Amino acid sequence: MRPSEIISQKKRGKEHTSEELCQFLDSFLKGDVTDYQMSAWLMAVCFRGMTAQERTEWTRLMWKSGESFKRLERETYWVDKHSTGGVGDKTSLILVPVVSAAAKKHYGTGKVKLPMVSGRGLGHTGGTLDKLEAVPGFSPVKTVDEALQLLDRNGFFMIGQTEEIAPADRRIYALRDATATVDSIPLIVSSILCKKLAESLDGIVFDVKMGSGAFMKSSQAAKELAEALVSTSKVQKVDAVAVISRMDEPNGKAIGNFVEVEECWEFLEGKQEEGLKRLVTELGARMLCLAGRRTFSLEKCRQLIEEESASPQARELFQKMFENQGGKWSEFVRARESLPAGYVQFSLPSENSGFLSRCDALILGEWVQKRGGGRRKVSDNVDHRVGVVLRKKQGDPVKKGESLAEVIIKKEEMESNIKDELLSAFEVTAVSPEKESLIVEVVE
Amino acid sequence: MRPSEIISQKKRGKEHTSEELCQFLDSFLKGDVTDYQMSAWLMAVCFRGMTAQERTEWTRLMWKSGESFKRLERETYWVDKHSTGGVGDKTSLILVPVVSAAAKKHYGTGKVKLPMVSGRGLGHTGGTLDKLEAVPGFSPVKTVDEALQLLDRNGFFMIGQTEEIAPADRRIYALRDATATVDSIPLIVSSILCKKLAESLDGIVFDVKMGSGAFMKSSQAAKELAEALVSTSKVQKVDAVAVISRMDEPNGKAIGNFVEVEECWEFLEGKQEEGLKRLVTELGARMLCLAGRRTFSLEKCRQLIEEESASPQARELFQKMFENQGGKWSEFVRARESLPAGYVQFSLPSENSGFLSRCDALILGEWVQKRGGGRRKVSDNVDHRVGVVLRKKQGDPVKKGESLAEVIIKKEEMESNIKDELLSAFEVTAVSPEKESLIVEVVE
Repeated sequence: MRPSEIISQKKRGKEHTSEELCQFLDSFLKGDVTDYQMSAWLMAVCFRGMTAQERTEWTRLMWKSGESFKRLERETYWVDKHSTGGVGDKTSLILVPVVSAAAKKHYGTGKVKLPMVSGRGLGHTGGTLDKLEAVPGFSPVKTVDEALQLLDRNGFFMIGQTEEIAPADRRIYALRDATATVDSIPLIVSSILCKKLAESLDGIVFDVKMGSGAFMKSSQAAKELAEALVSTSKVQKVDAVAVISRMDEPNGKAIGNFVEVEECWEFLEGKQEEGLKRLVTELGARMLCLAGRRTFSLEKCRQLIEEESASPQARELFQKMFENQGGKWSEFVRARESLPAGYVQFSLPSENSGFLSRCDALILGEWVQKRGGGRRKVSDNVDHRVGVVLRKKQGDPVKKGESLAEVIIKKEEMESNIKDELLSAFEVTAVSPEKESLIVEVVE
Repeated sequence: MRPSEIISQKKRGKEHTSEELCQFLDSFLKGDVTDYQMSAWLMAVCFRGMTAQERTEWTRLMWKSGESFKRLERETYWVDKHSTGGVGDKTSLILVPVVSAAAKKHYGTGKVKLPMVSGRGLGHTGGTLDKLEAVPGFSPVKTVDEALQLLDRNGFFMIGQTEEIAPADRRIYALRDATATVDSIPLIVSSILCKKLAESLDGIVFDVKMGSGAFMKSSQAAKELAEALVSTSKVQKVDAVAVISRMDEPNGKAIGNFVEVEECWEFLEGKQEEGLKRLVTELGARMLCLAGRRTFSLEKCRQLIEEESASPQARELFQKMFENQGGKWSEFVRARESLPAGYVQFSLPSENSGFLSRCDALILGEWVQKRGGGRRKVSDNVDHRVGVVLRKKQGDPVKKGESLAEVIIKKEEMESNIKDELLSAFEVTAVSPEKESLIVEVVE
């Protein structure tokens, strides 16, 4: 079948056979299907969607376009966690050491492995790799071989998308980014899962964000994505759970790479913002539960994660997470003591008294991104130090003049209206807002 | 606005401003909007359509991407005719001499001009330029300057799309052809009209084909296209009429470049197949009526065209149409006398007696195209001599063994099942089919 016929089929809403999808992707990778034909097809997918069978097959083909982590045994349990992207979402950095420590304690040394393929920040959302690189010297693992050595030795590693992992996804993602074809559930699912399946996982926990600061604005869209992620994983024999969590305000207090690593460290020392604690506990418990092949109850797993979340073992593993991959933790600790040259810090005082009823994740995420803390294009460099640390979270009482947030920024980025811009993210009202549950629903 | 934002807007169904469309097309022509971004946008247009304002503006921008025929006066009337593409549709070749002759007789010498920008055949439909080239030596005018000289001298010319006329359309059409984004009414309208507007016309008659052998399969789609063509033309101050005509069976009797020119000649000699006569009369009358700025009644114009359709003046102009542009009519006449070496001719006898109830334009058009008479790709060469001449038309009584059609084909194309394939285009039933009117509706 000619490429234009495949595109025409999708446009008319006809289901593709596995052979057609296979031929289409193969031809694309060989150059016989052009970028403009792929883009037209991607747009047609945005309008027509995919059936569950098409989605599963497309995911498998994207995955098989690259290598997978070679795994000879099935006695250990390999588990990962994936967030669909939020503001101030540093849970992966906490979960790796906490779940590792808890698993070692309760399931035994070397029984649970956490291979983590993470992403970079794009747009208003942050990326785990950028946060890790806030620690001087840290670099993501470069090859699958190196990653497997780390996994064997330490039980986890942090890697980005390499040349070997799902190369079809990298090419298609670049097209989607340039052609407004990102927000299609089957395309999102296949792009996430093709990389995760390359990890040869036994189980995975998804953190599907919903709300103004997330890609999925409505609970319906979030639920649809969660269900598609879970069912497509299960077809590929990967146990899966999706936690749908609110992303109207940022997770935790810090937004920005450096300050988020600081918040993680403080979290492990016991200074835990309530919402972040709730999220870490839920995601960690789900990971631990899967990793024990559901032998412990979920309630038990929540308790074990809470116990572990400020343990010396978790803090040690947190430092190792950086040091295993070249990060100099002591330098990070030293860097915390003072602002580097060229940066300023200021407070953002509230203009009213009352209760914080809005703390807008999207505005804050975009603000930090635009000041260098994130990327507009994949090729942009990131300033790790720029950041916002919230002093108040939604529902907190606020007095006029009290600081809503502390802001760190490069001097040259200071503009006269900088506070007004930031203040637009906050709303203080006389009445305390009704508190909505951070965890909306769990799909499994 | 970034290209991806423009695409995203169309995808979400938001109307583009004129500035946005202008910037998008400009950037495309400069290379800042890539082919894959244009293709994604084209696919979004297929799903979302365009408002009348967007369609008008997009047409204008495509037109203005190239040159227009320079016109200093408005005393003459410039009129063209455009068909949306059919099988055996040779009406342009007849209308140019017939309307020219009638206009000269009734409006005066040099008062009406017929600048004809025509196309090539693609897929199962034929193209006027390919038919003209069946006369040895004929070639389309190459430049706008040369065309204007011919127009001044003879009152008409035949030109294809040149480098100067609507270059944006040529690039976008190539993308549409490869990405299954041809069948969108606003994209069809803008592609047709941008070339027609470059002719600096006063009036135009559209022949919008509907049915199994046309791009528009339903009467609803054909009407929508007709209305869009007429209203978009009128906004640009070009008087316009659209005749919707049936394309379930071929127009006239001949399908194939050489045999169609033969049929035109015979038509002008008075041997007029009934349906073709009806179509020529209606389209010609509409052209003549426009060209007289609607001073004669339509009924009067029909009568004048019928009178002219077998006049010596029309036959003379028909020959001039070729000879003005290098065509050697005498050579064509000689070529009619015998089949060239390497070709065979055979009859297709009916297997039953009854009435011809189906004579499928799509099957016959594709059959001729696949045997070399048409193009699958724009770059394909065309065999002018291959063709089918129908001996029966829908509704005609047929006896078993009687010839349904005469077929001319290259010897090397002869296959054992060639008759069966052709016979699948015909159906002979015991009862005479109800005759449907060839002209379905007129939109003005």
